[in-house]
Formats: sequence, structure tokens, C-alpha cells
Amino acid sequence: MIITIGREFGSGGREFGRRLAEELGIAYYDREILAEIAKKTAYSQEYIEEVSQGRPVALFPIHYGGSFLSVADPNITQAADIFQEQSNVLKELADKSDCLIIGRAADYVLRDRHPFRIFIYSSLEAKVRRCKEREDEREKGLSDKALIKRIKQVDKKRRQYYEFYTGNVWGDRNHYDLLINTSNGDLKALAKAVAALLKPKK
Amino acid sequence: MIITIGREFGSGGREFGRRLAEELGIAYYDREILAEIAKKTAYSQEYIEEVSQGRPVALFPIHYGGSFLSVADPNITQAADIFQEQSNVLKELADKSDCLIIGRAADYVLRDRHPFRIFIYSSLEAKVRRCKEREDEREKGLSDKALIKRIKQVDKKRRQYYEFYTGNVWGDRNHYDLLINTSNGDLKALAKAVAALLKPKK
Repeated sequence: MIITIGREFGSGGREFGRRLAEELGIAYYDREILAEIAKKTAYSQEYIEEVSQGRPVALFPIHYGGSFLSVADPNITQAADIFQEQSNVLKELADKSDCLIIGRAADYVLRDRHPFRIFIYSSLEAKVRRCKEREDEREKGLSDKALIKRIKQVDKKRRQYYEFYTGNVWGDRNHYDLLINTSNGDLKALAKAVAALLKPKK
Repeated sequence: MIITIGREFGSGGREFGRRLAEELGIAYYDREILAEIAKKTAYSQEYIEEVSQGRPVALFPIHYGGSFLSVADPNITQAADIFQEQSNVLKELADKSDCLIIGRAADYVLRDRHPFRIFIYSSLEAKVRRCKEREDEREKGLSDKALIKRIKQVDKKRRQYYEFYTGNVWGDRNHYDLLINTSNGDLKALAKAVAALLKPKK
């Protein structure tokens, strides 16, 4: 059993995922994956995190003299290397045991293994509320306006990252098995319900 | 508790809805609503069904001499009357008891009552498969190609109907609480899981 979770920033996707993995008794991966990659590659974890959260700096080879000249932009090359390496790690982990993976375009990377693909989202108001409640270092003391800006920025980066590597539309229902709006939902109850659905029948 | 279900044609939305209503022990409405409307209005049920499945014939008043002339097109007037009457019936039913309503833009019509809004969909292949299995009179003996055409036609009508009356995008996740892809899902298990989620805590 492989479960992948895409999620909007502040929608509680990570907490939902952790609870669901616990309910099912399967491995849970988010930042651990990055740590694993960091061990395998020469890049530092901090740098990997930065790159894997955002789209590579330039999207296309430089357009030159009416034809596309494939210039090996070091930024692209490095980002693509990281994505490739990360994809290999994801596949290794998925082959090792049942698991749940947060983000990292895992639904796409592992598509041959037919994961159960969940997307977690909520209204902007609910995301602001959740960000305030959890008091992460990076959002501490931000005004509502600044928080909304940050939420939109992070979601934009996630969308760009996902769409750049997969060619699919982030959050488009046709690429997921289940989309859950957590605006008014209790994450614990939601995780229990989904676990009941996915638990292998005895 | 009010549950509304939007669904793509052939995705099993009606069966899912019936099972969910049974699990929860609440009223279930689909064609019954139409019967109720028919009793209340002078229109025959057959005609109402036809109109409520499709967009009114003309969408806008006739454009005339550079300005919009509000011509009372009898087709529009009648369709709008039916939608209004149907909306009143939906509200009456929702106030009478807990219920689940299939289609009819009920999520929008009852928005002030905060229904739990579900959207059921699947891949085209799964919809073709399901249509063949259920052997409805209207799809009997159709070739795959004809069936695909019919599925697309019905979904187009539903989309137009929904978007004409609500101004929202049909199946856009932001207007639903839960979107379920039934391509590989067991409707019975899905209904049980959602029922467990929605059942009032004792």
C-alpha cells in the first residue's frame, strides 16, 4: 500500500498524513526523504530543500537565433539531478514497505506502482486560521495580510514544482483518488475514516 | 444533516448516494423531487425532467440595436420558473428532515443551510464499464463509441445546467467538501467510510 498526499499550504495535509499513516501502521515520509537524499548526494540538505520547493530558476533553454539552443544551465541541471535522485529514493522507499509520502510529486513519480492519491485543501480563511494555531517559526507574528501573502507564495511554488515535473495540473481531481476539504473538518476523524476505507479486509 | 451529491454520468454517484443515505438512515431524494415539483406545478413530470437536465434553449435576451432588450423568451421563463419551484421544494425537504440530494445543484440552492457537498467522478473508461454493467434502457446495446458520446453529452448538459444556475464551475474542488474518484473504488466501502465520518458522535 502506497499513499501519496498533495496538499495546499496550511490545509493540515501533513498532520492528516501523519495521523493516517499511524492509523494504518505504515511508514511516513516527508522531510526524512530529503535527509535520505542528502546522504546520497553531494548537495547539502538545506540547498536541496530550497530547490525542491521551488521551480528551477530558468524553465527553458535560452531561445537563440530562431532555434532552441540546449544550453546546460547549471541551475536546471542541478535541480533536475535532485529531482531524479529524489525519485529514485522514493521508489526505493516504496519498494521497501507500505508507506505514505507527503508532497514531492510522489503520486506522479510512483504512478507505475498505483498509489492511492489524496489531495488536501481548504479555504483561504481556514488556512490562515490553521497557520495561526500551529505557530510555526516561519509564520510567527505575521499579520493576516502577510500570512495570506505567504500562503499564496508557498502554494504557487508547490504548484510550479508539481506542474514542471509532472505536466499535470496540481489539484486537478482527475489525477487523484480523493480530495478532502479540511476547512471545517476534524483531521483526526478524517484520518480515521480514510484509514477504515483503505485498511486491507481481513 | 444535509448531504448533496454532484456526479459525473456513469460514475456511480446515485448508487453511492443511495447507500450513504441508507447507512445514515436519512431521506434520499433524486427523481422523487421531480415528482414533488410536478405535483406543485402545472408542468408534466416528463417535461420538467427534460428542462431540468438541459440548459434553457436561449441563454441571453436577444441582442438588439446595440443594447440588451429583455425579451421574455417563454423557454427561459419556463425553465427559470421550474428551477425556482424546484429550489423551493428542495428547501422544504431539507427543513423537514435530514436528507441526501442527488444533483439539482442542491449544494448551491441549499448553501445557506451548509450541506456536506460531495462530488463523485471517475475516468472515462470506468464510466463506460459501469454503464455497460448497469444495463439501463437508454444505454442498452450501444457500442463503446456511442456510449462515450452519450456520457460526454449527459455530462455536458449537467455542467451547463449547474453553471448556468450557480455561476460556479461544476466539479471545482473549492465548492465541495469531498471529491471521490470511483474508478477503482468499491461504492459500498466508500459509502460506509463516508457514513462513519459523518455520523453524529454519540
